[in-house]
Amino acid sequence: MKMLHFAVLFALLFSSSSHAADFCVAKLKGAGSPAGYACRMPSMVTVDDFVFTGLGVAGNTTNIISAAVTPAFVQQFPGVNGLGLSMARLDLAPAGVIPMHTHPGASEILFVVQGKITAGFISSSANTVYVKTLKKGDVMVFPRGLLHFQINAAGIHAIAVVSFSDPDPGLQITDFAFFANDLSSELLEKSTFLDDAQVKKLKKVLGGTG
Amino acid sequence: MKMLHFAVLFALLFSSSSHAADFCVAKLKGAGSPAGYACRMPSMVTVDDFVFTGLGVAGNTTNIISAAVTPAFVQQFPGVNGLGLSMARLDLAPAGVIPMHTHPGASEILFVVQGKITAGFISSSANTVYVKTLKKGDVMVFPRGLLHFQINAAGIHAIAVVSFSDPDPGLQITDFAFFANDLSSELLEKSTFLDDAQVKKLKKVLGGTG
Amino acid sequence: MKMLHFAVLFALLFSSSSHAADFCVAKLKGAGSPAGYACRMPSMVTVDDFVFTGLGVAGNTTNIISAAVTPAFVQQFPGVNGLGLSMARLDLAPAGVIPMHTHPGASEILFVVQGKITAGFISSSANTVYVKTLKKGDVMVFPRGLLHFQINAAGIHAIAVVSFSDPDPGLQITDFAFFANDLSSELLEKSTFLDDAQVKKLKKVLGGTG
Amino acid sequence: MKMLHFAVLFALLFSSSSHAADFCVAKLKGAGSPAGYACRMPSMVTVDDFVFTGLGVAGNTTNIISAAVTPAFVQQFPGVNGLGLSMARLDLAPAGVIPMHTHPGASEILFVVQGKITAGFISSSANTVYVKTLKKGDVMVFPRGLLHFQINAAGIHAIAVVSFSDPDPGLQITDFAFFANDLSSELLEKSTFLDDAQVKKLKKVLGGTG
Amino acid sequence: MKMLHFAVLFALLFSSSSHAADFCVAKLKGAGSPAGYACRMPSMVTVDDFVFTGLGVAGNTTNIISAAVTPAFVQQFPGVNGLGLSMARLDLAPAGVIPMHTHPGASEILFVVQGKITAGFISSSANTVYVKTLKKGDVMVFPRGLLHFQINAAGIHAIAVVSFSDPDPGLQITDFAFFANDLSSELLEKSTFLDDAQVKKLKKVLGGTG
Amino acid sequence: MKMLHFAVLFALLFSSSSHAADFCVAKLKGAGSPAGYACRMPSMVTVDDFVFTGLGVAGNTTNIISAAVTPAFVQQFPGVNGLGLSMARLDLAPAGVIPMHTHPGASEILFVVQGKITAGFISSSANTVYVKTLKKGDVMVFPRGLLHFQINAAGIHAIAVVSFSDPDPGLQITDFAFFANDLSSELLEKSTFLDDAQVKKLKKVLGGTG
Repeated sequence: MKMLHFAVLFALLFSSSSHAADFCVAKLKGAGSPAGYACRMPSMVTVDDFVFTGLGVAGNTTNIISAAVTPAFVQQFPGVNGLGLSMARLDLAPAGVIPMHTHPGASEILFVVQGKITAGFISSSANTVYVKTLKKGDVMVFPRGLLHFQINAAGIHAIAVVSFSDPDPGLQITDFAFFANDLSSELLEKSTFLDDAQVKKLKKVLGGTG
Repeated sequence: MKMLHFAVLFALLFSSSSHAADFCVAKLKGAGSPAGYACRMPSMVTVDDFVFTGLGVAGNTTNIISAAVTPAFVQQFPGVNGLGLSMARLDLAPAGVIPMHTHPGASEILFVVQGKITAGFISSSANTVYVKTLKKGDVMVFPRGLLHFQINAAGIHAIAVVSFSDPDPGLQITDFAFFANDLSSELLEKSTFLDDAQVKKLKKVLGGTG
Repeated sequence: MKMLHFAVLFALLFSSSSHAADFCVAKLKGAGSPAGYACRMPSMVTVDDFVFTGLGVAGNTTNIISAAVTPAFVQQFPGVNGLGLSMARLDLAPAGVIPMHTHPGASEILFVVQGKITAGFISSSANTVYVKTLKKGDVMVFPRGLLHFQINAAGIHAIAVVSFSDPDPGLQITDFAFFANDLSSELLEKSTFLDDAQVKKLKKVLGGTG
Repeated sequence: MKMLHFAVLFALLFSSSSHAADFCVAKLKGAGSPAGYACRMPSMVTVDDFVFTGLGVAGNTTNIISAAVTPAFVQQFPGVNGLGLSMARLDLAPAGVIPMHTHPGASEILFVVQGKITAGFISSSANTVYVKTLKKGDVMVFPRGLLHFQINAAGIHAIAVVSFSDPDPGLQITDFAFFANDLSSELLEKSTFLDDAQVKKLKKVLGGTG
Repeated sequence: MKMLHFAVLFALLFSSSSHAADFCVAKLKGAGSPAGYACRMPSMVTVDDFVFTGLGVAGNTTNIISAAVTPAFVQQFPGVNGLGLSMARLDLAPAGVIPMHTHPGASEILFVVQGKITAGFISSSANTVYVKTLKKGDVMVFPRGLLHFQINAAGIHAIAVVSFSDPDPGLQITDFAFFANDLSSELLEKSTFLDDAQVKKLKKVLGGTG
Repeated sequence: MKMLHFAVLFALLFSSSSHAADFCVAKLKGAGSPAGYACRMPSMVTVDDFVFTGLGVAGNTTNIISAAVTPAFVQQFPGVNGLGLSMARLDLAPAGVIPMHTHPGASEILFVVQGKITAGFISSSANTVYVKTLKKGDVMVFPRGLLHFQINAAGIHAIAVVSFSDPDPGLQITDFAFFANDLSSELLEKSTFLDDAQVKKLKKVLGGTG
């Protein structure tokens, strides 16, 4: 069959490669690079590398913030490596809060699946606050790198699905950055103008030292 | 107050600009550029530019595909301009199908909100098929530019939220590209190997000529 | 000699590195990354890594499409790795056709070396057809990710040189994606509206199953 | 003269354009785009568009932080538009502090011109602190989007020159984002765990309301 | 017809925009941006915007270099705007030379259409020379920003087609940069170590002053 | 403690990875990729990877150009890998010159720390010269890929700090590219129009052959 010959020819030309234009499922164990993780051999890849089932289950919200973030970033979902996006699920119990945070390398878009959420972000130089209470089905976008937060705005468990413009968006919660490590209270107080008592109190709650 | 003076200084230095590092809400009427639309003046921007409420309502599925795509791309949601992502809602009635299509400039990630969906994509050179039936809460990623489809896999209305790695991902439905325009049947048949009767039949259904 | 000392200094500062700003000739055997293949040591690189001689010979057009694509992509021509471009040669015998296809990650520019070629592409949302018959010396550009085709438009063997905006542009021929694999006829028919007889016929020609 | 003819030919081919491959000096008054500001006509550009003299003068440090940031971002220095970098000068009086802040869209590199500076940044997920006291001539890099600070570490006025990986890096000082606007104390306290008294005190210092 | 309704719906959703994901044909008269020129309205675009016929004609080689470069850059071929590539034709009469030059923002790939060409480039830090004599059908790649040249290597008119990884690659011919302007001989001699007589001689040939 | 549990959860989710969104300190020994070097394990990284002390010392200017370039590129300063910037120090003794050169992949911004420097660059197609004598504290930007130079403009040792828009900007000094290798005098003279005596003289000074 002539056409078959053509198909075989193409397969020979294009399929014997360890890198593919189409996708690059992450080898998490190997060394990463500035553009992401190394690619698994396409012949070792199956549909399950492109499917993630971990967002179907509510995160555990029995913690001090009454909330949970369940990531489907490249570390959990290697199929998104190199594809310019990732996802996460937010669960907020009635008093739930996702505290002030940034994603150092990505914009975020949020879709409310259930409940109501008050969400906001703050612009950089002008420090303008953009806050809105979102209902089921509403979408809000948070520009890359800016401080933002989400708070349950109704008496029921809220769920949101969020997407990011990067497979590895990072997550820097300001409270954790300030209080959950060994940054000296002296440097922290000088660089934040927070009172010593406030710093000591939150370091204790979050397990920080110094 | 000394600090106030400092705050005012920063406001003067940074806020008098028509472009902002933070965001670039699209002026849809003006001329676009390869990087997206021109920015509205930050002083004209409000929180509502970053919120989109159109995905809370089911799309109209009383059509031949028993399905609807409701986009929150930059044309509908100017706040995503320049931010590297966008969103859409899929509604699939019990017999619903999102036909074979590509997004010429973006990867896609899908989250099943309700029902079951059989989804798949096809790799380029090796023509490998990656298909999976997804249940509520499952996530699947479709690498940029590759042919993919979604089909309702249960007897109930299915809903999905999809995100893209670009504010303007485009959407090329193969059937529409082949049959819903004035591409001559002769060229189409030569370049697709489809039979003349098949081409004529689908051109008629989809309003094509030639 | 003072200047010599300076030259030696620079050589020491800059040449002892396994990565070079200048180029990154691909190690095809190793694991790729989202940005391409790993670099060979510059000291192992010669001018022949930057030269490809395979496009000087006509491809074999004795197949059902009476045409051939000879790629100089990164897999065949490792010197283009990381440089943002690649090339290919098209040969079209008198009845030759490069069938409807996309390059998932690249734009294409075509230069007619010999003969006449009717080429066209289809825009995404509006499904507009852009078709033109090109003569020797004419150039046409095909925007990234869009369906396009090339057909011999004269009675003589036609040759074109095409370039891509990526070292690894990919190639997804719609017919091969639909009919040259094990995608079930049921899913294919549902997602393309093609008749069962048409699907079965082309699956047989192209070696597909299911 | 034959060569002259050639030179004139090239000038005609390339110089009559409003956009240039070489540079794109910003028209700050016009509408920006996601990639930066529109370009001034090259014929209107002089060497002074590529020179900025504002960093030769110490900033005014008679304020509560005893420090000053003098930017040479695209808003002050239109010549950097589209070139992927910008600069600023830091002045720190003996008690000077550049408070905790991020640049939402850029990495930073700092060179100590005079004095000693204790600088640090905090990684995102692991909250690790990287702190060092830098002397004259030392360089430190701060990865994009991460919280960082600089504090005078000696009894004399310190000066640093900092560069950014973007013409428009943005600057979000956490204290200003939290306390120098109308973000309600209730939302702020819920999303930061700061005490009401602390919030009220700093809102008063920084001119915030709510 | 139900499907028609669907088609109309999509057209309404996506076609009323001044910017398109698919392409962005340049408005050369307007102000450019760092990402290229503004887009023409898609409704004003025809297939002729994607076709360029100027490379079918030999350039005029009756000049001192016995060669010609005929560009199909964005300034001549607005359809490539934003698409990441462009093309040019080289004509080299028997004694023809494309002198040492760089493209500040693009890699280049060359295909020999006719004749023989000796081409070479020089790496940056190690100053290694990569030279090869290419025959008809051979391809050579020149990494971005590096000095390179092409010289006719046989007694007959040579033709090459070159592609670039940018719609606006720029072209800096070293001789023109040094000798075809008003750069003072003193600064030029200090910064190149060329002798005064050599500088004066070439300034005279190329129309330079100073 | 509930919050602690949350902190531990995040640490587990995010910190066990060999790649980090935050930074990617280069493993210089391994194979690079088009996007830079592979990343060291974050657990092996300390603050000293982000600090470079080599720019505090004057380079050795007892050479024929009476000048020195001390780089803090990724090869010397692995912490900048993937961060889109790097730095260098220029020392110019009273007669010092940084000869005509380009950085193939980066723009440059220069800050005068001490003394006076006459600096200039040349645009590509129009060959326009942009020259200025800069004093202490002045800043000048050199667009990517264009020829530029720096010359001491006063009787005292001058110092500048320069930053680049790439961790690995490259450096191609025209004189070294022309005269410090084995490029044949014949090819060099044909492609530069320099006289044979001039070429031979500078090849001798710079150690070239051929």
